[in-house]
Amino acid sequence: MERLSHFDEEGRSRMVDVSDKSETKRVAIAKGEVKVAPGTLALIKEHKLAKGDVLEVARVAGIMGVKRTPDLIPMCHPLLISGIDLKFNIRDAESIIEIVAIVKITGKTGVEMEALTAVAVAGLTIYDMCKAVDKGIEIGEIKLLKKSGGKSGIYLSDE
Amino acid sequence: MERLSHFDEEGRSRMVDVSDKSETKRVAIAKGEVKVAPGTLALIKEHKLAKGDVLEVARVAGIMGVKRTPDLIPMCHPLLISGIDLKFNIRDAESIIEIVAIVKITGKTGVEMEALTAVAVAGLTIYDMCKAVDKGIEIGEIKLLKKSGGKSGIYLSDE
Amino acid sequence: MERLSHFDEEGRSRMVDVSDKSETKRVAIAKGEVKVAPGTLALIKEHKLAKGDVLEVARVAGIMGVKRTPDLIPMCHPLLISGIDLKFNIRDAESIIEIVAIVKITGKTGVEMEALTAVAVAGLTIYDMCKAVDKGIEIGEIKLLKKSGGKSGIYLSDE
Amino acid sequence: MERLSHFDEEGRSRMVDVSDKSETKRVAIAKGEVKVAPGTLALIKEHKLAKGDVLEVARVAGIMGVKRTPDLIPMCHPLLISGIDLKFNIRDAESIIEIVAIVKITGKTGVEMEALTAVAVAGLTIYDMCKAVDKGIEIGEIKLLKKSGGKSGIYLSDE
Amino acid sequence: MERLSHFDEEGRSRMVDVSDKSETKRVAIAKGEVKVAPGTLALIKEHKLAKGDVLEVARVAGIMGVKRTPDLIPMCHPLLISGIDLKFNIRDAESIIEIVAIVKITGKTGVEMEALTAVAVAGLTIYDMCKAVDKGIEIGEIKLLKKSGGKSGIYLSDE
Amino acid sequence: MERLSHFDEEGRSRMVDVSDKSETKRVAIAKGEVKVAPGTLALIKEHKLAKGDVLEVARVAGIMGVKRTPDLIPMCHPLLISGIDLKFNIRDAESIIEIVAIVKITGKTGVEMEALTAVAVAGLTIYDMCKAVDKGIEIGEIKLLKKSGGKSGIYLSDE
Repeated sequence: MERLSHFDEEGRSRMVDVSDKSETKRVAIAKGEVKVAPGTLALIKEHKLAKGDVLEVARVAGIMGVKRTPDLIPMCHPLLISGIDLKFNIRDAESIIEIVAIVKITGKTGVEMEALTAVAVAGLTIYDMCKAVDKGIEIGEIKLLKKSGGKSGIYLSDE
Repeated sequence: MERLSHFDEEGRSRMVDVSDKSETKRVAIAKGEVKVAPGTLALIKEHKLAKGDVLEVARVAGIMGVKRTPDLIPMCHPLLISGIDLKFNIRDAESIIEIVAIVKITGKTGVEMEALTAVAVAGLTIYDMCKAVDKGIEIGEIKLLKKSGGKSGIYLSDE
Repeated sequence: MERLSHFDEEGRSRMVDVSDKSETKRVAIAKGEVKVAPGTLALIKEHKLAKGDVLEVARVAGIMGVKRTPDLIPMCHPLLISGIDLKFNIRDAESIIEIVAIVKITGKTGVEMEALTAVAVAGLTIYDMCKAVDKGIEIGEIKLLKKSGGKSGIYLSDE
Repeated sequence: MERLSHFDEEGRSRMVDVSDKSETKRVAIAKGEVKVAPGTLALIKEHKLAKGDVLEVARVAGIMGVKRTPDLIPMCHPLLISGIDLKFNIRDAESIIEIVAIVKITGKTGVEMEALTAVAVAGLTIYDMCKAVDKGIEIGEIKLLKKSGGKSGIYLSDE
Repeated sequence: MERLSHFDEEGRSRMVDVSDKSETKRVAIAKGEVKVAPGTLALIKEHKLAKGDVLEVARVAGIMGVKRTPDLIPMCHPLLISGIDLKFNIRDAESIIEIVAIVKITGKTGVEMEALTAVAVAGLTIYDMCKAVDKGIEIGEIKLLKKSGGKSGIYLSDE
Repeated sequence: MERLSHFDEEGRSRMVDVSDKSETKRVAIAKGEVKVAPGTLALIKEHKLAKGDVLEVARVAGIMGVKRTPDLIPMCHPLLISGIDLKFNIRDAESIIEIVAIVKITGKTGVEMEALTAVAVAGLTIYDMCKAVDKGIEIGEIKLLKKSGGKSGIYLSDE
């Protein structure tokens, strides 16, 4: 039967030992969506054309958030992240900002949590910067799109 | 016309000056959902009956996450949080763990971002602790349920 | 019957709500001891007379550790510490460095954990700086000496 | 004779006790300069017209840096910053980017260190983002321009 | 004569250069003890049987504390910890909770400080969660039990 | 034409991918200057002869600051620093404290930013510890002196 790997045989939480895993090149791609009111999206887009830029602040926050992942998620290993890309796709018809984070490493564990944390922190930052004008913002659909490298091979979500 | 309050009149991002706001008792309640596979939910629930407890680790992570909010969200003010509660409701039929965070303060700004960050970090922690057995987990519906205190009065989401 | 205040009525961990506590001037004094080999103590003392100073590095670490307390101890409130003193008493006969930390605040909760964390971090730093020459160092007797301010009045340990 | 206030009467470093200081509205303005090669300045300015923006990343970093001040500077008190503005003036003729930080608080201690840290972190970030094309960048003239609030009254630098 | 390795030939503190040390598999085991009142121990044990769990919160805090070690101890190197186990043994007769931390790495320096920090932070967390009902708690006997890997070979304490 | 490497082809900020760079031994040496009033310098020097030591506190802060570099500078990679030296040269005639930081690593990216951050944080700490007696302190001339290791070879400033 399967066992949650973060617990040992007696059910205690622990940081799983990866001493014997080999270093491989790993990539994780995660996504999430921020649903705002159409008027809020217009404000974000106009600002982008001016000097201020909600999405650029959110991008910086998301990239910095990757580096805080082991401080936030108790059982995550500290990792030497080798690259981070964070993109936003605006889907006007749905009034949604889609966030996509790509995180790369050569290491012993995958970087799913880092990519997901980037998405979450970027999403929270968009929320924060717009909340004065829009209290109904919702962050959702945070999930893994793709993962490669490591023993378990390539994972691709249905999406 | 409305303006995003985190930008000044020339569009530069900044931390909004709250020097002249009065200190009031403020509460924010946020929620989010983690959708897991039914087999994963069963594992979480079984562990709960044993010594390990995914949700207790996630609760600690969420509470600690509140205190990291100003480190994560660029324009958030540092705050003297006075209380945090984090609850999980398991909705078996949908295979969903609902997270609800209640954050309290007596201060000059609201604590929405702190409550939302608690939910996000707790959700990411559940993801991390289950990802070895379930790569299709999705975190969603992160939003504000209620907010009281401060000049803008009480906000209640439709939900 | 008594109940551990960090858990609510259903046994969930939480950060206790202090919204309704009044702000008072509070002081906590904590101590601890680091037992080293006599030769190690001599080295520490000699260095003190030269330019390097194990205890000065430990003092800085202990003072900075106070400010990390809410990041380290899950249920601790963030606090606006107003003063920190950290002293070392060398007890030659026992080959012991005694650490005493005094932490002050005007706030809603006590600062015992901050004073104890100062002692622990200073002790760990002394350990780190001497471990190359002494692997048998022991840190002990970490406890509260005195606490004043707040509803529960003055506490004085027997010591 | 004057004494450095961070040391006590026996010369030990400590965090100065501010328990008895009164809370007043305080503002500190600090500046600094980043001297780059003319070609680097052109690249920064061109990017600004496109989507990327060195100065916007530096602004976010500087604002976040303010909140890390007590983690970086050993004897700094933790503070509830109430507002931060960070501006850049490009002085083309000298090929200099001037950084000005304005930090506000209602509290017991001044915010000079916070304003100076904002300038330093923003300057380091500009350096980091340009260093691939310009290894001769120099950061300088970091100083306090103005300080108001508190017992010592208003300070104005000669500049 | 021996010299404290954290100081250079002129007595200045520094982070010792480990560039030329080879990467080996290293393990450190540290312990500590928390002495509580018998009634406090009973409360902890009862809670364990209910939903709340002082020791599980302390375990999470200790594991997270390992990752903060280089932030707390000035001369510690940042490390890629590969595994952490944290165990509690309750010694009823003495009313003592014994904490044992096992930390693993493949790296250039040992992980004694990480194991000792895990013990200290877990001990402080137990203290924090019980201090409302027990002000006489004492943390002690924090020391290294075993260390292996690296040039200096295996160390075993007498205990 | 040159492009700032922290931006991708569409001008978005990102953490540059270093997955394919090889690990080499790298050293960076940076400097900076703190200009104080002659009376302040005298106080610093007198204290040094007593127990307190502004420069020793600044040294500890600078060394710890190196480890916070990726938390402060958005696009910096987390790195396993292998050694740090921080020296102060007092230039009496000019009333200047010169700070020199030497940082070493075996890794995929250089450590210029780490050495520069050490200098900046040490300089800010000197400022903080002297600001009660000297409001005109200025930090300047922060720049790279030397860099070796990596594909781009050795860099030496004119100085």
